[in-house]
Amino acid sequence: MEKLKKILLPEKDIPENWYNIQADMPNPTLPSLHPGTKQPIGPQDLAPLFPMELIKQEVSKERWIGIPEEVRDIYKIWRPSPLFRAYEFEKLLDTPAKIYYKYEGVSPAGSHKPNTAVPQAYYNMKEGVKRLTTETGAGQWGSALSFACNLFGIDLEVYMVKVSYDQKPYRKFMMNIWGAKVFSSPSDKTESGRKILAEDPNSPGSLGIAISEAVERAVTAGNTKYALGSVLNHVLMHQTVIGLETIKQFELVDDFPDIVIGCFGGGSNFAGISFPFLGLNFREGKNVRCIAAEPSSCPKLTKGQFRYDFGDTAGFTPLMPMYTLGHTFIPESIHAGGLRYHGAGVLVSQLLKDNLIEAQDFHQLECFDAGIKFARTEGIIPAPESTHAIACVIKEALKAKEEGTHKTILFNLSGHGFFDMSAYDAYLSGKLVEHHLTEKELHADLKKLNTPVIP
Amino acid sequence: MEKLKKILLPEKDIPENWYNIQADMPNPTLPSLHPGTKQPIGPQDLAPLFPMELIKQEVSKERWIGIPEEVRDIYKIWRPSPLFRAYEFEKLLDTPAKIYYKYEGVSPAGSHKPNTAVPQAYYNMKEGVKRLTTETGAGQWGSALSFACNLFGIDLEVYMVKVSYDQKPYRKFMMNIWGAKVFSSPSDKTESGRKILAEDPNSPGSLGIAISEAVERAVTAGNTKYALGSVLNHVLMHQTVIGLETIKQFELVDDFPDIVIGCFGGGSNFAGISFPFLGLNFREGKNVRCIAAEPSSCPKLTKGQFRYDFGDTAGFTPLMPMYTLGHTFIPESIHAGGLRYHGAGVLVSQLLKDNLIEAQDFHQLECFDAGIKFARTEGIIPAPESTHAIACVIKEALKAKEEGTHKTILFNLSGHGFFDMSAYDAYLSGKLVEHHLTEKELHADLKKLNTPVIP
Repeated sequence: MEKLKKILLPEKDIPENWYNIQADMPNPTLPSLHPGTKQPIGPQDLAPLFPMELIKQEVSKERWIGIPEEVRDIYKIWRPSPLFRAYEFEKLLDTPAKIYYKYEGVSPAGSHKPNTAVPQAYYNMKEGVKRLTTETGAGQWGSALSFACNLFGIDLEVYMVKVSYDQKPYRKFMMNIWGAKVFSSPSDKTESGRKILAEDPNSPGSLGIAISEAVERAVTAGNTKYALGSVLNHVLMHQTVIGLETIKQFELVDDFPDIVIGCFGGGSNFAGISFPFLGLNFREGKNVRCIAAEPSSCPKLTKGQFRYDFGDTAGFTPLMPMYTLGHTFIPESIHAGGLRYHGAGVLVSQLLKDNLIEAQDFHQLECFDAGIKFARTEGIIPAPESTHAIACVIKEALKAKEEGTHKTILFNLSGHGFFDMSAYDAYLSGKLVEHHLTEKELHADLKKLNTPVIP
Repeated sequence: MEKLKKILLPEKDIPENWYNIQADMPNPTLPSLHPGTKQPIGPQDLAPLFPMELIKQEVSKERWIGIPEEVRDIYKIWRPSPLFRAYEFEKLLDTPAKIYYKYEGVSPAGSHKPNTAVPQAYYNMKEGVKRLTTETGAGQWGSALSFACNLFGIDLEVYMVKVSYDQKPYRKFMMNIWGAKVFSSPSDKTESGRKILAEDPNSPGSLGIAISEAVERAVTAGNTKYALGSVLNHVLMHQTVIGLETIKQFELVDDFPDIVIGCFGGGSNFAGISFPFLGLNFREGKNVRCIAAEPSSCPKLTKGQFRYDFGDTAGFTPLMPMYTLGHTFIPESIHAGGLRYHGAGVLVSQLLKDNLIEAQDFHQLECFDAGIKFARTEGIIPAPESTHAIACVIKEALKAKEEGTHKTILFNLSGHGFFDMSAYDAYLSGKLVEHHLTEKELHADLKKLNTPVIP
């Protein structure tokens, strides 16, 4: 048999269901709380922001949730995505480990984000929503939702953090191509934006401010809802098409991973690749190690605390039980913009609390070095976010070599780096400096929280 | 049967041979001439620049040239590339025509260029060459060759036109990631560069100057050869993997194209998609119309003359029998940088002369409009070069509608537009202005040629 580089599936093998890990995890998640009453929130609290179908998915305990045919039809543009065997990267590392990567950069927006953007836009369309709002930092999520809204005829307003809007215009142009309106945040479109601008006309903005603006618009404008690209249960569930396909692809080559690795921001690409394998751990007694690779500059999983906290800087969202560094924590301006988030999704947090997944943190320079090594062997230039997973793969592959074990390692290559060339240039020309935060600095914002640590 | 969006082939269906159209075309090409002696050039004239295997391919009349296993192994990173059916684009055009596109943007460098960069680097490596030089404009070719040289351990020097080097740094960074050295041209590395800089220290450079520098370095530095990304016979032949795969993919869905369309710069992506179909025309009596879509600002096929001319501005290359606007013709700064070339490859020129292919020209604004329509229906954002093919598809699809005929149209989507966001922004914000050149302006440089028109 010829040695396969890419393991492909036909379109009919696009999953017919998303996998809902809430059906199988040993301990259910704790409820999210209303910030005012401190009582568990119900569907009615979320209804102003999300269509009812997504709210149902958010709390469902059903194991399999059907993927609508209209969504599967759009998935066909890039799904099933290829699973690659990293022969050349293995050679470079001189490791006995077999390394595979699932490549999500083949989507039109260049990352895994459209996996959830498409169903979110679809359910909003089905419920008659005419406009969506969202926030975006560097622009991965904003461009994915622009792509999706355009296909379903939904208007989209994206509030993009001013500093990114000014410094990284290419993602903005991409959103414009798909017809989205992109506003520099803080903007004069909302009361929260105007308030900030009145205090500081030169405010650089923040993700927290952008969320406030997007939420305010969704609540005050007619026939408008809000969409989020990570953290929430339904978002993580939509991403499970990644892992479900991968399980089938391993069957084709009669292999199976010992270790599954994903980079970690809010949890969506990590959940996408790992939850289906965790499901096999829970239901079939498999023993796959799932490792979340997070940046050392924003290490909520390895250095944060498990406690109730807000999802946004301003404190508008429900209080969620999650690993957090405090909702006022502002991470360093690392180039992996998609990982600069203070907290972890509730599902992933519960799994980590229960020791069912692992987490490791990696410094930026080590990650870019890993990314370059990968690009020079496998050819594909990874997104800075994805290089965190690659750094973790190197660590585990070298450990396997040291121990003389024959591990099979899988990671999710969540996106390409075509929009991150200046980050690579900064690395290659020696301009990237590493800031090592002390534990005191990392925990400063946790001290400001008035919620107890969950035991 | 489920409606297929993507028609995929397994890796074993990567072609085992390239198709050499020289075996089948009714009239052979005229010889290229030595610029000094005006005598037909022989292998010895090309030996300082190219490895012998490529020189053999350049003049071979064998129909099938075997693709080395090492090259096929690297092709597996992105080949066979997908063939898509453009259902949504068809709906938008409300046409009875079926539209298919072969997508070459899946390669690590983002275009079809690695199809020839990989074998060129391979044959140089086999013959012990340690360093290659090349020129690049906007950077598509330079990045493809960087990708390929890195995999075979060959050092690469890229001479990048200064105005692009300064204004479009992202392709340069991409080349650096794969380890290439990129110099702003004119540079102080070569005598030709230093001469230009002495006359004008602020020279913006040109492709002609960059070619001179790359050729000079190849000839004067030890163990160094030169590589070209289009125009030459062997380059066009390497691209035929595109069309060969497509023929197999059509068999899978029991369809066959009436019309095949590719955008046109020097001829490489057009040849890649069309030559295998022309081969079926010649050998099996098929009747596929093959249309080259070129920019109205650089219309050598539709408005140029068939005569002997140089391949470079400075006049260092052999004299080639080709459709040309004159080697001193400097096209407008349109955003489709890959199509800004004064001449057409010899093979394509002979085919056009013999009325075996067609050519149409398209204005920039029409092309961007076509690109936006495509991105908003099919999702993929096309390179500005590829939008010329899309504009041609729209024209032919609407003609089919008018005539009430059921045509099957295929085009080559030669690359993605992720590095061309500012071009799209210029279009969407109304900043692109169309210059319509008069026939007098288009023919001004032809008047300077002292070679006769070939009857």
